[in-house]
Amino acid sequence: MRLKDLGERAFLGKLAPIGYPPGAPLPPGDDAGGVWMGEVAWLLKTDGFLYREVALLGMGPFEVGWRGVAATASDLLCKMGRPLGFTLGLFLPPDLEEDFVLELVKGAAEAAGRLGAVLLGGDTNAGEEVALTVSGFAQAEVPLPRRALPGDLLYLAGDRWGRTGAAIWAHHRGRSLQGFPEIREAAFYPLPRLELLALAGLLRGGLDSSDGLAETLWQLAELGLRVDLEDLPLYPDVLAFAGDEAAAKELVLYGGEEFEAVLVVPPEAEAQVLARAEAAGLPLFRAGRVGEGEGVFLQGKPVPRRGYDHFRP
Amino acid sequence: MRLKDLGERAFLGKLAPIGYPPGAPLPPGDDAGGVWMGEVAWLLKTDGFLYREVALLGMGPFEVGWRGVAATASDLLCKMGRPLGFTLGLFLPPDLEEDFVLELVKGAAEAAGRLGAVLLGGDTNAGEEVALTVSGFAQAEVPLPRRALPGDLLYLAGDRWGRTGAAIWAHHRGRSLQGFPEIREAAFYPLPRLELLALAGLLRGGLDSSDGLAETLWQLAELGLRVDLEDLPLYPDVLAFAGDEAAAKELVLYGGEEFEAVLVVPPEAEAQVLARAEAAGLPLFRAGRVGEGEGVFLQGKPVPRRGYDHFRP
Repeated sequence: MRLKDLGERAFLGKLAPIGYPPGAPLPPGDDAGGVWMGEVAWLLKTDGFLYREVALLGMGPFEVGWRGVAATASDLLCKMGRPLGFTLGLFLPPDLEEDFVLELVKGAAEAAGRLGAVLLGGDTNAGEEVALTVSGFAQAEVPLPRRALPGDLLYLAGDRWGRTGAAIWAHHRGRSLQGFPEIREAAFYPLPRLELLALAGLLRGGLDSSDGLAETLWQLAELGLRVDLEDLPLYPDVLAFAGDEAAAKELVLYGGEEFEAVLVVPPEAEAQVLARAEAAGLPLFRAGRVGEGEGVFLQGKPVPRRGYDHFRP
Repeated sequence: MRLKDLGERAFLGKLAPIGYPPGAPLPPGDDAGGVWMGEVAWLLKTDGFLYREVALLGMGPFEVGWRGVAATASDLLCKMGRPLGFTLGLFLPPDLEEDFVLELVKGAAEAAGRLGAVLLGGDTNAGEEVALTVSGFAQAEVPLPRRALPGDLLYLAGDRWGRTGAAIWAHHRGRSLQGFPEIREAAFYPLPRLELLALAGLLRGGLDSSDGLAETLWQLAELGLRVDLEDLPLYPDVLAFAGDEAAAKELVLYGGEEFEAVLVVPPEAEAQVLARAEAAGLPLFRAGRVGEGEGVFLQGKPVPRRGYDHFRP
């Protein structure tokens, strides 16, 4: 079967188990893979993308390089992995100006540095168009899988919800982000949160949100659970940008590229999670809960699944 | 300046230091990057390539997936890093058959497994043509940089010298490899050597040979040394394939894709290196020595530098 007929999700489900070790710190198909070294998990993550698919209006190579490290780092951090280093695999047209690539690598280095990590080289190849693959490794003492039990609470970490969705929406419609500095900042310089590590050992599960909140929750529901959203974070600037609440909710649910974490909190750990998050300066929003059943719902109404598929654009 | 005017080597020299940490186990631009974690170095390596550029006549996706892991593993092993896990970043045309990709990933998993390592997932994206980026991480107690001192000896590890060059030559001229099973095996299923790790702590330096022996030695000479080859390994099947000694030497010097290691041995460690290599079952060939001066020579005659440049094909 062709990839475009099979679809990306089904395809990844077939690829993930191949060669993946039993007894690993995280199951195959999770946001990152890893091996145990003594009592510490070493995580490895690779994320690739085409430049033209992520470069929003106004973003240059610096921002795209930054974005690449942010995407990989987010997958590591939501597994409670502390990122240590990143490499870049670059496909570049031979006609490209060197300054373009230098800026791209500087952006990657800047994002790595802000996360207390480093760049560890990489590889360049000629290619028809600019494509990046960012890999990173991390150490996790308590690696956190995609996991939930009925009764667990759902929290959204960070403050980019709806903002990156707004920026992507603006890009596709040629709308300016002037007057919306927090939306621009969220999309141009998303920084995954080291503060998540303050919650290590307290959480039931964690997921990276970069496919969009709805798709991420659907991935959680696929484990055999019902996900009930009771509320969504609607920031004043996102509301103002969207025009009304329904449009803002759409941006929160289907935005994507937030590089934030969806956290699954056991009820008995909630107070401690909130206290540690506050002490660490990590914004947390209580969005709902997990129950028995199936599907994703917002205030009782079904949330349709419309995840992005690279092979069916 | 455009990449094709600048050239890949000069370009990589500019990229390598960006974001690279001071005091790292290996210098920027070495075969792999790394960080110290306590007294152990953690190495990370990424290597990307286009499928059509490495798939020789008769190779399928299984062999190309294998080749991808072999290339990255070789860079880690020649730094004395024990590979633990690999990830794949794949760009794939949506019209591609899923079986093609499954074979590719199975080949990668097979090579990883032969090296005592695992696959840890990866990422897929749509792309115009099949492109792979393989990343791997490794642990090294005594990380080995590209390094030499005048008076050191040069050894070539392994037995693929000239063989992979013969296979590439055959590919470009449509010549069959029938009757040359060792050449075919070397090119289709190159396995970097875990046995190299038996030499940890005894060597002055190590380099991965995959750009070709001559280019690799030029990279060593660039450190401010003269490299004198006294002899080259000329296997009977490579001689038979090439037809004469001059053509066979050409294959050994400019073949590439061996995924073998060039080792720099301090004279006082030579006996111990040979003993440990023999005990481990690692083939070693004494090829020459390093001295003061510059350039690369074979029996006193200059060895021209003609490395492959991805941006000037």
